Order: sequence, then structure tokens, then C-alpha cells
Amino acid sequence: MKLTKQDLLERADRVYDAIVVGGGAGGLSAGIYLQRYLVSSLIIDKGKARSFWMQELHNYLGLPPDTPGRSLLRQGREHYLSLSGDMLDGFVEEIVDKGETFAVTVKIGRQDSIEQTFHARYLIAASGIIDYLPNLDSMRNVYDYAGYNLHVCLICDGYEMADKKVGVFASTASNAEVLFPLGWFTPHITLFTQGLFEIGDGLRQKLQEQGYQIVETPILQFLGEDHLMSGVELEDGRVIELEAGLISMGSKYHTEYLKTFNLEIQDGNLVTDKMARTSHPRIFAIGDLKVGLNQVVVAAADGALAATQIWRDLRRSQPRSHHSQLT
Amino acid sequence: MKLTKQDLLERADRVYDAIVVGGGAGGLSAGIYLQRYLVSSLIIDKGKARSFWMQELHNYLGLPPDTPGRSLLRQGREHYLSLSGDMLDGFVEEIVDKGETFAVTVKIGRQDSIEQTFHARYLIAASGIIDYLPNLDSMRNVYDYAGYNLHVCLICDGYEMADKKVGVFASTASNAEVLFPLGWFTPHITLFTQGLFEIGDGLRQKLQEQGYQIVETPILQFLGEDHLMSGVELEDGRVIELEAGLISMGSKYHTEYLKTFNLEIQDGNLVTDKMARTSHPRIFAIGDLKVGLNQVVVAAADGALAATQIWRDLRRSQPRSHHSQLT
Repeated sequence: MKLTKQDLLERADRVYDAIVVGGGAGGLSAGIYLQRYLVSSLIIDKGKARSFWMQELHNYLGLPPDTPGRSLLRQGREHYLSLSGDMLDGFVEEIVDKGETFAVTVKIGRQDSIEQTFHARYLIAASGIIDYLPNLDSMRNVYDYAGYNLHVCLICDGYEMADKKVGVFASTASNAEVLFPLGWFTPHITLFTQGLFEIGDGLRQKLQEQGYQIVETPILQFLGEDHLMSGVELEDGRVIELEAGLISMGSKYHTEYLKTFNLEIQDGNLVTDKMARTSHPRIFAIGDLKVGLNQVVVAAADGALAATQIWRDLRRSQPRSHHSQLT
Repeated sequence: MKLTKQDLLERADRVYDAIVVGGGAGGLSAGIYLQRYLVSSLIIDKGKARSFWMQELHNYLGLPPDTPGRSLLRQGREHYLSLSGDMLDGFVEEIVDKGETFAVTVKIGRQDSIEQTFHARYLIAASGIIDYLPNLDSMRNVYDYAGYNLHVCLICDGYEMADKKVGVFASTASNAEVLFPLGWFTPHITLFTQGLFEIGDGLRQKLQEQGYQIVETPILQFLGEDHLMSGVELEDGRVIELEAGLISMGSKYHTEYLKTFNLEIQDGNLVTDKMARTSHPRIFAIGDLKVGLNQVVVAAADGALAATQIWRDLRRSQPRSHHSQLT
């Protein structure tokens, strides 16, 4: 059930089998599998999963190719709640490993917020990432187009940019490199440094060899209407026409609550085994937080794997009658 | 497009980037990703994917929990065809590695069947498995209930069997072991050996300790109506009431066409790396054929991974302009 403040005291005494941090595609899929294994779960969601911003999912098997990300999430939440899973809107502030269980402290509510601690044997980190966006005076101007034809994922949306005039908005020379694989889809590419970094001679030469344009003047605003970005206006007044954009400015990882565990990391991503287990035997990581492809269907599969392994662990460590108290 | 016999000659001269053997969940997801990477593909499907038999998918994120497997497949086929992928009803008879490409010989049509050879740089084996079912005089009697409350997958349908009287239909002592994890869901279990194997003293004692029943008389038929199995009639005339069944008789792997490649195998399943690549650098394996969890969402994710890796391989080995001939 969706927990309200009134439910909290009763739930504080309970030991869940698993707490899932994050109610995006990975967390919801994990929750559905956990509940179907009769493994009790609580999903704690602070809202705004990355897929929530996807106006159209184009590559998720089983859904029509224009399904909004928020429809997938809504269906997943209904599915999870129909299996008697617990769900809470809140922000995970701290997690302490008590040996057999974790104590998970959650901040609930924006105004008059309260803190409440929940307990679980296993933890699934599914809190994902969020893309950094161009920092303009009016961020509303960015949100007008992000997720429409201003993309953040080449893997997802390269196809949408095929043969179009595409602007790449990067924040470092390293994340500008995305324009080379983008070149598979279109030859018409302009790199916008937004004045945030210098382009070295090597990169500049490679860009010129490919016939890509470079704009180093900062951006004033995106132009367009009805969520269709048609170009950018620079701070010096110039206007550059575009048919699509790809933002590559890195991502914020929502992993502060894991800091004290010193989990194994590779290039900023959590290292997991084939069943999504991290270097801590009772902490799993799924979706964009972990090493691998950041795709909705991969996150959903990760959720199935993590839930299955937790069920196997519980089954092997506890008497069969254990689950009866949960149902 | 869906290829007809008239299209075949024209397609025979073409070199696809990838041929996908199998049009189930894995193959369709792979095809959708391939086409969106502007990587040309042909899916060859002999029909009857395992998920086609699933009357209700209960654990696939994004679909309501009573969606038939065939709805997922239909949506996936439409999606793939909308991206201009090629699809062919046929049976892959032989594959020969020519070094740069594979020659894939397909038998097309049941009556007046013809053979046609297609060519591709990469191969994705997505031909799946099919479960062996109890061998009764009237197999119609088995198909009446299979996929309804006569299940083949504990991971998928353990929840549906919770606290019910369940019959486990095994063909060897080894695959009878599934009843121990089934014990997590229900204590009311009867093992049916169907007279196919002997139960050793060790297993018999374990079963008795758990309070499970054993029936060694062969089955005459399943009883029930409207696809709801309510028990079995044995060959000696006895009737045993049940509320659900779990068939555990092993699976046939559709991999004959891979035999000559001597791919690395573990317990009958193809070994793959994190991107679903087999021990052959241009052959990928996804879904139930490979080591891992046999779940629809996992197969769909496998398809995304294999397609992504093939795109990366092609991108690194070919000039950027290559794809323009495909679109």
C-alpha cells in the first residue's frame, strides 16, 4: 500500500525482507518480483525517475513506441501495489548496517518534514541518475524541450536524430566525445562548448576532419515552440538553427546514502555480479547506478535478477514457514 | 517488412548486418534495437515462442499483470516492422561461417517448402527453448491446461501456486528437485513420477520429512474444465485432486543450427559475456538459450545488449558512411 504518515509508526516495527531505494523502472520491477516471491518489500521513492522525463519510450519491448515514460512508471506502481507492496514518498538520508538488518532513515514530506527509520534485511539501490542540463538563466527554457527533441541518451535517441542537424551540448572535452558515435546517425553535427571548456588541438583536428562545427560562445536560450527545439540563440546574439539536440554534460548519481559502505566502483558506477549484487553481500544495485547499459529494459531485468537472488538467499537461510508471517 | 516468397530472391543478394534466429521476446527486442541503430536485420521465426504459450504475463514491467504472452509478441512484431526490419517465417536449417559473413539456409513453407540462403555479418541466436510436457495419449488434454494453472516456470508462477495443492510432474529425480524451492510457496505438494524414474532412498526421505506426497503410477489424463486443471486421473483409476500443477521435465533447446560452431556451453546453456556475446566473436546468444534466468524481461534486455554490441563493433570497423546504404 501507499504509506501515509498515519501508517508510519506501525511500519517502523516491521523488518522488511528488502527495502528498494528508488521507484523508477528498476525499482518497480524489483518490487514486483519480490512481492511475487512472497518477499516483503518497501519501495522508497523521492520522485522524478529519469524515465519520468522521457516523453516517448521508443525501444521498450511490449509498449507502443510512443509510450511516455511516466505511463510505464504508473503501470509499474499499480502493478506493485496490487501485489501488496509498500510504497513511500520520501528521501533516504542515511543507512546503517546493523549486521542482520539495515536501519534506513527517511525524510518524509517537504514542509513539516519528519524522519522515520525502517528496517530491512536486504537493500536494493535503484535510485538512478539524473542528467546535468545546460545551465541557463531560465531553466524553464531547457525543460521546454528536454525529452522531446533535446535528448540526453544517444543509445535511446540516435535514431530520432538520423540525418538531422544536431547540436551536442557538452561540459567537458571528455563528454564531447559522444559526437563521434553520434556521427553514425548524422553527419550534420555542431559541438557547443557553452564556454565551459577548452578544445585541445587533437580534438579540434578530429572534429574538423569529420566536418563538424564548433561553437564556443555561451548559449542564451533555446529557440522553438510546442516543445520542438529549432535552434539556439547565443549570448552574442547569433542564432544557430538545429533540428535536434543531444546533451552530454554528465550525470548526478543518487548514491549519497551508500557512501559509508565503500562499495566497489568502476568509473563512477557500482560494480555488481551477474545477479546485481554489489561488493556488500546484502546490497544490490540495479539500473543506471551500476556498470552497464543505461536502458529502461536493462534496469527492469536487473530488478528481476536482484529480487531472484534475494529470494534464493532468504530461502536458503530461513525455514520454509518464514514467509507465512508476511502474507 | 514481412517477407513473402516473392521477396526472397531480392533479399538473397543482400548482406544483412545481423540475422536474428527466433522472433520471441529476445529476438524482437534485439531487432527493435538493431533497426534503431540503423543496423540492418532479418528476424527468422519458426513460430511458437515459449512466451506465446503464456496465457498471462504477471511480472513484466509496464504491462498489466494479465497480459497474454502473444500480445507482447504481437506488439513487438508491429514495433519491429514499423522500423523497417525484415521478418521471415521459416526454419533455420544450417549456418556456415564464411569468415566475414554467415550463410544462413532457411526452409520456408510447410507444404511445397523451398530453401533459401541469406547472408549476414552477425548472428543472434534467440531461438529459445520449449518445455517437455507429460506424454499422454491425448496431448490435447495437456494443452488444455498448460499455461493456465498447469505451469512450467516456478520463478514466474510460484506466486500463483501459493498455499495451493500443487502437483509436480517430473521426468527425472534431478528435475524433481524443483519441489524444494516450490516449498517456499506452498506446503501442499505431491510429486508425480509418471512411472518415468525411481526415487532413491535419500530423496524419498527428504520428501517425507517435508510431508510431501509421492505418486508413482502413470497419469491417464488431467481433469478439469475451462482450462482450469482440478486434478489427475491415474492409470489405475485413482483420482487425485489438485489446485495447480508444475511441470518440470526439462526443455528442448533449439540450437541444432549452432552445432558445428562448438560454442562454449555450461549445463546445456550457451556461455556469453556481459554483452551476450558467445565464444564466437560474431555470434550472440540471448534469452533462454544462454546461462542465466529464463525470464521475458531478461530476454528483452539481452536483445538490447547484443544489438548494442553489434552496433559498436560495426561502428568501429566500418566508415561512418556505411549505414547510408541501409536507410
